[in-house]
Amino acid sequence: MNSVYLDNAATTALRPEVVKRMTQVLNETYGNASSSHSFGRSSKVLLEQCRKDIARYFKVSASEIVFTSGGTEADNLALRSAVRDLGIKEIITSRIEHHAVLHTVEQLEKEYAITLKYVDLDECGRVNYTHLEELLQAADQPLVSLMHVNNEIGNILDLKRVAELCKSYKALFHSDMVQSIGHYQIDLEAISVDFMAASAHKFHGPKGVGFCFIRKESGLKPLIFGGEQERGYRAGTEAIHNIVGMAEALKLAYDNLEVEKQYILELKTYFVEALKKELPKTSFNGRCESQEDSTFTLLNVCLPIAPEKASMLQFQLDLKGIACSRGSACQSGSNQQSHVLTAILDVEQLKQPSVRFSFSIFNTKDDVDYVIDVLKAFTTA
Amino acid sequence: MNSVYLDNAATTALRPEVVKRMTQVLNETYGNASSSHSFGRSSKVLLEQCRKDIARYFKVSASEIVFTSGGTEADNLALRSAVRDLGIKEIITSRIEHHAVLHTVEQLEKEYAITLKYVDLDECGRVNYTHLEELLQAADQPLVSLMHVNNEIGNILDLKRVAELCKSYKALFHSDMVQSIGHYQIDLEAISVDFMAASAHKFHGPKGVGFCFIRKESGLKPLIFGGEQERGYRAGTEAIHNIVGMAEALKLAYDNLEVEKQYILELKTYFVEALKKELPKTSFNGRCESQEDSTFTLLNVCLPIAPEKASMLQFQLDLKGIACSRGSACQSGSNQQSHVLTAILDVEQLKQPSVRFSFSIFNTKDDVDYVIDVLKAFTTA
Repeated sequence: MNSVYLDNAATTALRPEVVKRMTQVLNETYGNASSSHSFGRSSKVLLEQCRKDIARYFKVSASEIVFTSGGTEADNLALRSAVRDLGIKEIITSRIEHHAVLHTVEQLEKEYAITLKYVDLDECGRVNYTHLEELLQAADQPLVSLMHVNNEIGNILDLKRVAELCKSYKALFHSDMVQSIGHYQIDLEAISVDFMAASAHKFHGPKGVGFCFIRKESGLKPLIFGGEQERGYRAGTEAIHNIVGMAEALKLAYDNLEVEKQYILELKTYFVEALKKELPKTSFNGRCESQEDSTFTLLNVCLPIAPEKASMLQFQLDLKGIACSRGSACQSGSNQQSHVLTAILDVEQLKQPSVRFSFSIFNTKDDVDYVIDVLKAFTTA
Repeated sequence: MNSVYLDNAATTALRPEVVKRMTQVLNETYGNASSSHSFGRSSKVLLEQCRKDIARYFKVSASEIVFTSGGTEADNLALRSAVRDLGIKEIITSRIEHHAVLHTVEQLEKEYAITLKYVDLDECGRVNYTHLEELLQAADQPLVSLMHVNNEIGNILDLKRVAELCKSYKALFHSDMVQSIGHYQIDLEAISVDFMAASAHKFHGPKGVGFCFIRKESGLKPLIFGGEQERGYRAGTEAIHNIVGMAEALKLAYDNLEVEKQYILELKTYFVEALKKELPKTSFNGRCESQEDSTFTLLNVCLPIAPEKASMLQFQLDLKGIACSRGSACQSGSNQQSHVLTAILDVEQLKQPSVRFSFSIFNTKDDVDYVIDVLKAFTTA
């Protein structure tokens, strides 16, 4: 049976080199990085080398990288502490952020007397920068949380523009960059982001590990209290094998960035053209058809399928061995409509099924051909 | 050069079977457990099988096991939510808890208007149960947090007695069981613990993963907000490879419990006897010499070494390839005296160096002989 994995925005297969390094560490380097003997030092050396390597890609200092259990924890760490410890009274975000941000700021609104505001988006999910500036003008001690690349529709934020706006209005800027790290060069020397969240399993690294970039002297305090690991920012014995796997995956991602980007972009373009030719009534959600406004790694398409057949689509794709998704994996267990699409599509558009296909270096044109065949057979059946 | 790892209370080497299973999962099962396609389901099946397997060892329901990034996060999850969401106004704990508990409750005391009380301990670090009852009698909506096995001196709490006291005074009972899980049978059907924290890397599993037992209908809410993973208790994509590794390690621990316990206990007894013979002025901290009151996995000894030579001891042991520790790894980077020993020893005792040696199935009598030789040479040099 065919097996085509096109859900790389949910998670990615690990690179073989990453598994190899992780297995080596699991077998050989088991010391606790906080221990002062040789076993501990071996782990500590690996840990700090990974931190340095990772920091270099973003032009930041190693001490600004805090390892976490993933992107969600990194988002929670920055947002909670900003409110609790840094005096943030207002959070400006958008309705199409990942739930790791949205549900966290909603919880913070309940716990603390903060104001929550949502920046206007156009019908493609693009941030209205004028409205953002208006919100910033009127805000008292604000933090802006806007993701770099949207995980469902692929929109790319103008990071530099938002960072400069934040700077001029003395707002802190947090960005969930889970979908862009390892896919785009991010220069934090040039762009004044205060907090950034990353997750290894989105760039062919292991699950259960990520990091939070925390700008120096931010005053941030931990989410998880206990030992003095991570310079006091995050307690708990460091998962060396996972951190080494993440560093290896990030290295391979950035070493091969341009070649792999071209390869994946070609696949996406090939997919777009095939859809236009074979299923001409397909529409593209957000700006995902664009090469400039949207990431090369995904397509979110509204398919010309009658509402009465729509409910069978996911089932049919799954039956044919095609892995893709309706929205973010974090809500795909439920039957809820994607909160991202709900925020940007009208009622009629929402009646038709939308599907996210997301690509990686492990996909081929054959995968695309197969998906197109299955979709064509389904729509014409 | 000799290499003797006797710091198993800080972390343990992984069992080869665990590494093998983890590598398999890393290579083969990379789907996001929240995805509804076949790749996701494969991960979900593994995840839920692990949960069921783990729950069975403690006679609890699978839905009461919440996977976390480790013991520290599990402690933080239970303690923070108990205060924030369950109306806890007072926490009763002890001065010899792990920092994952102590620093968390200190932080909660700062953030919320809770009362923090410490139960009296005797000179061996044993909980004064009469005082605990007095504290409970006088308390308003209390939670008791007492660890099962102390990580530095090995004292074993009478879990059943504390659970019954808590029950009769309507107090919640949280226990950090990081040092006892996988080493002792824990029957939570018989013992009414409300929250329990576990860490895989203390029983030959991977770092960066643990779990929190959360008694059904407790009302607990997340520490980390976002997706609906872990039935809404803990957001973030599950680290399947780590969870599978933890379940495999726990299975092997419990399948071989009695045999391995006997083996390790014999090593400990052999060590005690050798110390008494070769370094007769050694004293044993806490009740670690006892087979009933203290875990079979560790010894914490105050060595007959002059204060002026004490500072060289750790260095010398390390030079000889012996890994052991002064206290918990979480504070061993610092030069601070162990908070556990400070709580139970007098000023004179604290002047002499104390060392924790902690054992596992991978240690041998040769290891012990070697350590004794090195200690003897050092004390008589």
